[in-house]
Amino acid sequence: MQDAIVTGFRKVPSFAEGLVRDLRVRWALNEAGIAYETAAVEVSERHSESHRRSHPFGLVPVFAADGRTMFESGAILYRIAETSPALMPEDADGRAETLTWMFAALNTMELPLNELSVLDLQHADQDWAKLRRPGAVEAVRTRLDALATWLDGRDYLTGRFSAADILMTTVLRLIGHTDLVAEYGPVKRYQTRCEARPAFRRALDEQIAGYRESAVAA
Amino acid sequence: MQDAIVTGFRKVPSFAEGLVRDLRVRWALNEAGIAYETAAVEVSERHSESHRRSHPFGLVPVFAADGRTMFESGAILYRIAETSPALMPEDADGRAETLTWMFAALNTMELPLNELSVLDLQHADQDWAKLRRPGAVEAVRTRLDALATWLDGRDYLTGRFSAADILMTTVLRLIGHTDLVAEYGPVKRYQTRCEARPAFRRALDEQIAGYRESAVAA
Ligand SMILES: N[C@@H](CCC(=O)N[C@@H](CS)C(=O)NCC(=O)O)C(=O)O
Ligand SMILES: N[C@@H](CCC(=O)N[C@@H](CS)C(=O)NCC(=O)O)C(=O)O
Repeated sequence: MQDAIVTGFRKVPSFAEGLVRDLRVRWALNEAGIAYETAAVEVSERHSESHRRSHPFGLVPVFAADGRTMFESGAILYRIAETSPALMPEDADGRAETLTWMFAALNTMELPLNELSVLDLQHADQDWAKLRRPGAVEAVRTRLDALATWLDGRDYLTGRFSAADILMTTVLRLIGHTDLVAEYGPVKRYQTRCEARPAFRRALDEQIAGYRESAVAA
Repeated sequence: MQDAIVTGFRKVPSFAEGLVRDLRVRWALNEAGIAYETAAVEVSERHSESHRRSHPFGLVPVFAADGRTMFESGAILYRIAETSPALMPEDADGRAETLTWMFAALNTMELPLNELSVLDLQHADQDWAKLRRPGAVEAVRTRLDALATWLDGRDYLTGRFSAADILMTTVLRLIGHTDLVAEYGPVKRYQTRCEARPAFRRALDEQIAGYRESAVAA
C-alpha cells in the first residue's frame, strides 16, 4: 500500500479525544506496518464542498492510498486488512468470519453504545437524557452480557487478533466514561488486552499529539 | 450456493412487520436467484442456548448455506454478493465501493434512523421520547440531506444496483412511519425505485405471509 493518508479532525472537544474514528485506521496501519501521512479538516469545515467531495456525509475518517480515496471506517479497515495478514486471515472462511465481527462491532454493538455515549457526553444536562439513561444503559448491558459470554475463554473475537478487534475495542471506548465494561470481566480483560498492543498505543499517542500540535499552531 | 436457510422471527408485533432484518437476506437471495428455505425462532426464545449457538447476540437474521452458519445481515449480504454478480461487481475496486456503502447504510445512516424508529415505535408515549424527538429528527435530517445530495442524478448508491442498495433501502424503511424521506426527493425516488424491484416485493410478501401462517398455526 503506497501513499497512505488518514484524514481526521484538526481539533476536537476534550471529551472526544481518543474516540474520533480515525484512531481505528491509524491503529490498523500500525498493526500492518504500513507507513502513512495524516491530514486534518476543521470540524467547522466538515460540510464544505471540498470535504464532502471525499466524504459524502461530511465525516471523518477519510482514507487515501494507491491513488484511491474512500470513507467508512469499516470498509477502510477491510481494505487495509485485505493487504495484510496481520489484520485478517487470507482464506474465504476466515475473511467472512472477520467481516461478521466487523459488522457486529459497528452495528449490533455500536448502536446502543453510541446512543449512551452521545447521551452522556453531549446531552447529560438535558431532562430527556436523564429520563432515557436507564433504558439506554439497559440496552448496552444486553449487548455487553452477550459479548462477555462470547469472549469467555477467547482472547479475540475470532481465533486470532484481527481488524474486527480494532473496531470492537474502539466501539467499547465509546462508553469508557462509564464503569459498565468493568462489570463484564471477559469484556474488560479483552479491551485491556487489545489496548495493550503497541500499535494501539502508537495510534492513540499520535492522534492526541496531533491535537496538541494544532493547539500550539492556533 | 446450496442449502440456503434464512432464519427470522416466527411472529412480530405488527409495527415490526416488513422491518425485521431477515427481509434483507430474502431480498438478496431473490435478486441472486438463489433458492432458499426459511426457519423461524420465537421472539421469546431468542436468548435460548440453542439460538445463541447460531447468533451470539440472540438476534435474527441467521443464515446458513453450503454447511456454514453465520450472522450479521451486512456480512451475510457480502457473502451472498461474492457469489452473485447481480449484487456486486467482481473487481476489487467495485467490491470496495459496494462495501463502503454497505457500512454507510448500517452505521452512518442506521445509527440515527434506528434511534428515531425505536423512539417512535416503542417509546412514543414516554416523556423522554417526546423531549428527545426534535433532536433525533434533526440527526436524521442531517443524514437524509447528505444522502439526497449524493443520490441526486444517481439511480443507485454506486453506478449500479448492489447489495448496498438493499441495506440502504431497508434502513430507510425504519422511518417509514414518518414523512421524512418524502421531503428529500432524490432519496424518496431512490427508495421507490428499489422497492419496485420484483425481488423486493417477493421478499416482503414472503416475510409477511410467514407471519400470517404462524398466526393460523397458533
Ligand atoms: N460510519 C462512519 C462514522 C464516522 C463518524 O461518525 N465520524 C465522526 C467522528 S468520530 C464525525 O465525523 N462526526 C462529525 C459529525 O457528526 O458531524 C465511519 O465509521 O467512518
Ligand atoms: N446487526 C444485526 C442486527 C440484527 C437485529 O437488530 N435484529 C433484530 C430484528 S430486526 C432482533 O433480532 N431484535 C431482537 C432484540 O433486539 O432482542 C444485523 O444486521 O443482522
